[in-house]
Amino acid sequence: MKKLINDPQAVVGDALVGIAAVHGDTLTVHRDPDFVRRSDSPVAEKVALVSGGGSGHEPLHSGFVGVGMLDVACPGAIFTSPSAPQIHDAARAVATEAGVLFIVKNYTGDRLNFGMAADMLEASGIPTETVLVDDDVAVEDSLHTAGRRGTGGTLFVEKIAGAAAEAGASLAEVARIARKVNENARSMGLALTSSIVPHVGTPNFDLGDDEVEMGVGIHGEPGRRRVPLSSASELLASLADAVMVDLPFEAGDKVLALVNGLGGTPLIELYVVAGELASYCSGRNITIERSLVGSYITALEMAGCTITLVRADQELLDLWDAPVSTPALRW
Amino acid sequence: MKKLINDPQAVVGDALVGIAAVHGDTLTVHRDPDFVRRSDSPVAEKVALVSGGGSGHEPLHSGFVGVGMLDVACPGAIFTSPSAPQIHDAARAVATEAGVLFIVKNYTGDRLNFGMAADMLEASGIPTETVLVDDDVAVEDSLHTAGRRGTGGTLFVEKIAGAAAEAGASLAEVARIARKVNENARSMGLALTSSIVPHVGTPNFDLGDDEVEMGVGIHGEPGRRRVPLSSASELLASLADAVMVDLPFEAGDKVLALVNGLGGTPLIELYVVAGELASYCSGRNITIERSLVGSYITALEMAGCTITLVRADQELLDLWDAPVSTPALRW
Repeated sequence: MKKLINDPQAVVGDALVGIAAVHGDTLTVHRDPDFVRRSDSPVAEKVALVSGGGSGHEPLHSGFVGVGMLDVACPGAIFTSPSAPQIHDAARAVATEAGVLFIVKNYTGDRLNFGMAADMLEASGIPTETVLVDDDVAVEDSLHTAGRRGTGGTLFVEKIAGAAAEAGASLAEVARIARKVNENARSMGLALTSSIVPHVGTPNFDLGDDEVEMGVGIHGEPGRRRVPLSSASELLASLADAVMVDLPFEAGDKVLALVNGLGGTPLIELYVVAGELASYCSGRNITIERSLVGSYITALEMAGCTITLVRADQELLDLWDAPVSTPALRW
Repeated sequence: MKKLINDPQAVVGDALVGIAAVHGDTLTVHRDPDFVRRSDSPVAEKVALVSGGGSGHEPLHSGFVGVGMLDVACPGAIFTSPSAPQIHDAARAVATEAGVLFIVKNYTGDRLNFGMAADMLEASGIPTETVLVDDDVAVEDSLHTAGRRGTGGTLFVEKIAGAAAEAGASLAEVARIARKVNENARSMGLALTSSIVPHVGTPNFDLGDDEVEMGVGIHGEPGRRRVPLSSASELLASLADAVMVDLPFEAGDKVLALVNGLGGTPLIELYVVAGELASYCSGRNITIERSLVGSYITALEMAGCTITLVRADQELLDLWDAPVSTPALRW
C-alpha cells in the first residue's frame, strides 16, 4: 500500500486538520465528534442542510459545505457511516427554527444513524425532513444496501436543495425539491482498479489486467458484471445505456450531466469520456444543459468513473445556476 | 495499460472534444492546429496571455483559460511541446495591439518552439514578451531541460499575470509581475508510482513497492534520490526543507501555497499533506496567506504530489485575490 498518509487509523483526522488549515476562512472544523460546518452557521431563518457519510469519497461531503450548498458535513471513518450522536451534534450546531434537512445516501448504516439523529433532533423540538439518495442503477441491492445505492446524484441533490434553502424556501419545499432531484437522477460507474482501505492495506477486490467492473459501487462493491477493457466510447455507451433506459430518459429531455472520476483517473481521461457522453446524448436528442467534469465523489484511489444524468426542468436549472461557494463547487 | 481512452494516438484530440462540449459557453476549441481560447478573445486593449505545453498535465493549461488568467492554451501531444506554427496561430488568434505575453515552462522543446513563435509574431509587428517558469528546485538540469524545470509555479504565474492583464497593465508591467512571481516561487514533488504514456503503454520508470522518487519531474524524470516510503509528515518535511532553503524563505515571510496532486492521488491524501505543510510553516513562522489543494498540474495517472510556495507581498496577494473564471480556478 502506497499512500501519502501518517497512521492508517488517523487519515480522516489528519485530513480534517488540512481542511481546517486550507478552508479556515469559511469553514469551521469540529473534532470529537467530527464535523465541518459553515463558519457563519447557524444561518438565521434558513433551513439547514446536513449530510455526511463514510470518508474516502472527498470532496464529498466536506467539500460541499458553504453558501448555497450544505451547512454541515459529518465524515465517518473510511467507508463507514458517521455515528448517530455525531450526526446529531453536527445538526444541532447548524439548526435553526426553520428546520433541518438530512440528505442521506442510501446505505444501511447511514440510514440507521441519520434516522436516529433525526429522531433525537425532533425530540428536542427541531423540525426535520430526510431525503434518501438512491440514484445508482447498477444493482437493486448491494453489499451495504437494501435498495439502490446513492452516488453521483448526491452532488445534484445537495447543490440544488442548497440553492432552494439559501433562497429562503421552507423545509417542506426544500425537501420536495431534493426528492425531485433524486427522482430524476440516474448514475452508473465502472472501475479499472480497486481502492485500498488504509487500515486494511490490501485491495478491496481483484481485477484482471484487461477487466473492468461495470456498475461498481463507490466502496468497491460488485457491479453487474466484469467485461473486457474496451474503448472509452464503448464503455461510456454501456454506462449510458443503463442510465437512459432506467428513468427512462427520452428524446427532447434536458439534462444536467456529471462525468465523475473515482480518484485515480486523471482529468484528461475524464474529458475523453465527457466527449463521448456529449456525442451519445446528441445522437439521442438529449440536450446537456450544464455539465461538470472532475473527481467529486471518489473511492479513494480507485481508477474509473461514474456518470450521472439528471432530467432538469427550468426550476432545477435555475437552482443549479444559483451561486454556490464551497471548496469543491464555486460559481 | 488501463485507461479510459479510445485510440492511444487520439487522446489529446478526444479530450479536446470533451473540453469543447463541457466548456463551450466560455471557451472555443480550435483544431488543426489545436488550441483552446477564450471565446471573447481577442479582448480589446488587453495584453494577451499565451501558454501551453505537452498534454497529460490537465487541467494545466486549457483549464486555466478564461477571464483573469490565460487567453489561449496550446496542448501538444502527451508530454511533448506544441509546435511553433501551432503556438503562433494560437497567439495570433488572441493577440491585440497591447501585445502578447508567452508563459513558458522551462523545457528545451517548449523554449525552442515558443521562441520561434514569438519571433514570427514580432516579425508581423505584434510586441511580445516571454517569461520562463523554472520553479522546481529538485535538480539543476534534467532529461528535458537546461536549467530548472517549470512545475507548480506555472499556476501562480498564469493567475497573477492574468489578473494584471485583466486590470489593464501594459505588456512590460505584466511581464514584470510574471517574472516576480517566478522569482519568488519554489516547488518540489515526489512520486509513489509512475505514469504511463498512452502510445508507449508501459511505465516511464519502475519504483519498488516501498520506494518514493523524491524530486520527480512532471514527466517522470528522475529526481534527487529514491527513499523508502515513510509518513506524510516526513515526506512533506523533506519536500518543504528543499523548497525553503532554496529561495530561501525566512521567518516572517507571507506565502501562497499549493499542494498539488499528480493525477493518481486522491484528495483525502492531499489534505493530509496540506495539514502537514500548514504545521511545518507555522512552526517556522511562515504565514500561509492563501492555499490551494487539488490536482492542478498532473502527470497522467502518477500517484504523488508537488508542493509550491510563493513568497507574496501585497501586490501579489491582491492580484491572486482578483476574480478569475476558468474551468479549473474560479473565484
